Amino acid sequence: MSEQLTHIDDEGRARMVDVGDKAHTDRRAVARATVRMSAATAAAVRDGDAPKGDVLGPARIAGIQAAKRTWELIPLCHQLPLSSVDVTAEVEVGERDGRVVLVATARTRAQTGVEMEALTAASVAALTVYDMVKALEKGVEIADVVLLEKSGGRSGAWRRDEA
Amino acid sequence: MSEQLTHIDDEGRARMVDVGDKAHTDRRAVARATVRMSAATAAAVRDGDAPKGDVLGPARIAGIQAAKRTWELIPLCHQLPLSSVDVTAEVEVGERDGRVVLVATARTRAQTGVEMEALTAASVAALTVYDMVKALEKGVEIADVVLLEKSGGRSGAWRRDEA
Amino acid sequence: MSEQLTHIDDEGRARMVDVGDKAHTDRRAVARATVRMSAATAAAVRDGDAPKGDVLGPARIAGIQAAKRTWELIPLCHQLPLSSVDVTAEVEVGERDGRVVLVATARTRAQTGVEMEALTAASVAALTVYDMVKALEKGVEIADVVLLEKSGGRSGAWRRDEA
Amino acid sequence: MSEQLTHIDDEGRARMVDVGDKAHTDRRAVARATVRMSAATAAAVRDGDAPKGDVLGPARIAGIQAAKRTWELIPLCHQLPLSSVDVTAEVEVGERDGRVVLVATARTRAQTGVEMEALTAASVAALTVYDMVKALEKGVEIADVVLLEKSGGRSGAWRRDEA
Amino acid sequence: MSEQLTHIDDEGRARMVDVGDKAHTDRRAVARATVRMSAATAAAVRDGDAPKGDVLGPARIAGIQAAKRTWELIPLCHQLPLSSVDVTAEVEVGERDGRVVLVATARTRAQTGVEMEALTAASVAALTVYDMVKALEKGVEIADVVLLEKSGGRSGAWRRDEA
Amino acid sequence: MSEQLTHIDDEGRARMVDVGDKAHTDRRAVARATVRMSAATAAAVRDGDAPKGDVLGPARIAGIQAAKRTWELIPLCHQLPLSSVDVTAEVEVGERDGRVVLVATARTRAQTGVEMEALTAASVAALTVYDMVKALEKGVEIADVVLLEKSGGRSGAWRRDEA
Repeated sequence: MSEQLTHIDDEGRARMVDVGDKAHTDRRAVARATVRMSAATAAAVRDGDAPKGDVLGPARIAGIQAAKRTWELIPLCHQLPLSSVDVTAEVEVGERDGRVVLVATARTRAQTGVEMEALTAASVAALTVYDMVKALEKGVEIADVVLLEKSGGRSGAWRRDEA
Repeated sequence: MSEQLTHIDDEGRARMVDVGDKAHTDRRAVARATVRMSAATAAAVRDGDAPKGDVLGPARIAGIQAAKRTWELIPLCHQLPLSSVDVTAEVEVGERDGRVVLVATARTRAQTGVEMEALTAASVAALTVYDMVKALEKGVEIADVVLLEKSGGRSGAWRRDEA
Repeated sequence: MSEQLTHIDDEGRARMVDVGDKAHTDRRAVARATVRMSAATAAAVRDGDAPKGDVLGPARIAGIQAAKRTWELIPLCHQLPLSSVDVTAEVEVGERDGRVVLVATARTRAQTGVEMEALTAASVAALTVYDMVKALEKGVEIADVVLLEKSGGRSGAWRRDEA
Repeated sequence: MSEQLTHIDDEGRARMVDVGDKAHTDRRAVARATVRMSAATAAAVRDGDAPKGDVLGPARIAGIQAAKRTWELIPLCHQLPLSSVDVTAEVEVGERDGRVVLVATARTRAQTGVEMEALTAASVAALTVYDMVKALEKGVEIADVVLLEKSGGRSGAWRRDEA
Repeated sequence: MSEQLTHIDDEGRARMVDVGDKAHTDRRAVARATVRMSAATAAAVRDGDAPKGDVLGPARIAGIQAAKRTWELIPLCHQLPLSSVDVTAEVEVGERDGRVVLVATARTRAQTGVEMEALTAASVAALTVYDMVKALEKGVEIADVVLLEKSGGRSGAWRRDEA
Repeated sequence: MSEQLTHIDDEGRARMVDVGDKAHTDRRAVARATVRMSAATAAAVRDGDAPKGDVLGPARIAGIQAAKRTWELIPLCHQLPLSSVDVTAEVEVGERDGRVVLVATARTRAQTGVEMEALTAASVAALTVYDMVKALEKGVEIADVVLLEKSGGRSGAWRRDEA
């Protein structure tokens, strides 16, 4: 069944998929990471963010920079020149717990998709939030990292069903 | 409340915490990331991995390398010289779904902890698994990234309660 | 006279100075970069910065990250593990022109000084400000990048005379 | 007024400008950095440079390499594939003081301009000169970093007025 | 005679060749590195490789990643977006000695060739093999690193004569 | 036999050797790479090098920089803070052929040796020479990359026998 794994050749060895013969088309992907924490920690993030934006700002910047370096981090990814990356960060303070939600959008015109770039941006933004709150609370966790949307390329548009 | 956020100074600005006066002690942290996928995809990973190890091998290598670059990715992290990094990867093929579980362990002797290094290693290893299976299945997700253990430093040992 | 240039050997070739026999001492350096622009551009920075801090925040983060990568950028610099880096950014809106002043402070305990790290942080923070305002005004310039203070090591403390 | 800052979105958050819909055109930019020092230090650079070129050679190489890494250093810059980078370095030994003048030229065919690449090359070349002479003289400074010319793109050609 | 060295300008200074006016054509290059060791060490590699592929797997991954970073390592190389990189690794256990042979293939569509990318991939893969066996045997050596084939661009196809 | 390969664990998986319990001692390693070319090409390098040093200068700088990045390139290497790196480059123009010989010396005080740093510096310096002469001659090759000396650490001093 290993022939289904496109990064594995006939002898089971990892490889970069050859995209040299694919068309250059507009590609877009959106990914989301959620950092779950106590309501008190989330409130500290929300309040600490008020005057200068320096809690979520660095997380957003870290995510944007990581998207551009995805090909350095993920061994079999191609070097894609991104036409834009955007990362938003929202704090939710609930009754029982809280969360910071990071949504990353990446765009390019290339021979292969940008979902890894969006996922990497969301992951690194989430790790940066974690880094900033870890002194407040040890049990913080990255609750999930998921692809929300993807368009462009032969396989067409796809959207996560979150019903 | 922003004074609780150690990465934020009195005026709300992000900063690297000054660790210059802290003691050098042995530090160790263990983190885990779980990639959730269909049973069929997990079986392909397990089978593809049999002959040469090239599905999970690259994920483990990517995690080890990412641990060493944590300070480049997370803006306010210190440059820690790691004395070891290890990443294990296990495939579980269940009846209804499957998963790949990545566990990263980082060690150093330094003035600050290595949880970010362990978490970054686990996250990037998980992203690498995602990259390798994404052509098989679009709904794959990183189900969580959590710290399992942490020791060394003034705050002593900590272990996640997974009861 | 080339024997005075410590990075040049007896045959005129560039080299990293061997610091292996020097003592580990606490080192600190402060550097400043000034970005000069019109009063209107400076006002836009000041106002744009109000709600979320995202004009000067990214410049500060970029400076902190660049300090950690100084050894990658400056060929003959050593890899120094910084115990802290801080970058402050102030906007001054004058009658005839304006400026953004970036001040970077780096600390380490090492065998050689950290002035290059402080200067690199200030320079890259200034370039980031430039990048953000260049669409508003073409004549923006980095007016100077200077070392303000330096302490630690055999040569003792030094402070720039700005009288 | 924040709508004038193209790197800031409607809510005041930093972002990479989306260049996906802009035309690919030939872009060129020239930037200059000046390192000011005593006449004696400048003479040492000039003389040290005579036999092997290893004072200014490393500065030129460091500038070329930094131009290619601009997108790693400046958070909101795009990854531009440069078709050429050139850095020249000239020493001037005056009666009262001296200087090293670094001029960087970058070219690409892309959807956005290369002024940041030229400015980054000049800045890092200047920092490398600083690193090499700092043991001779503590008061050395980067006197300015300015854009000299820029062409390509919708805004057309621009040249700094240095009358 | 320095006018023959395309990386040296008329005044003998290093430069990146300007490729802005060259055509984008399909480029391909194949390079090989050979690591020579004792028969016993080669047998350990071969046997160690059997169950999980983790001796040669990391070398192949390191080579693929290094190909993508060639422009960071070789100062005057251009940033080429590779459409594929592949590295194969074979162990030969002879009567008197053994060897690991690494063959790297790089492809792109660009304005300049990819031989440096293939050679860098083969070199770094060989260094990774060396790193893994150096505890077993001190006299291991990289016996040669050569270009095997090159195609695309104005100079047409070339193949090494190994008769 | 895989237990002899220190980078492979009991289950055949790659790992970073844990050096946390080893002593910090002074380490030094010397490596050499030889680039073989025609006599005419070697003469062009020698002559091109005369006025400004810009043929071999960039190779030496590239080698020094690569030594500092060894841990990024070789997956299982530790991050070692080098106290010095030096690379020398000599051209030999013979009757039938020529060569450029690169010798790299690395020093540190650390828990593990620096032979990979010296070998990486020599390899990348050799690749840089190759890059500069490849337009003159296609058959250039890196003839060998070998460790010449190694000292420090438990295994004591070692010197290559080149009799």
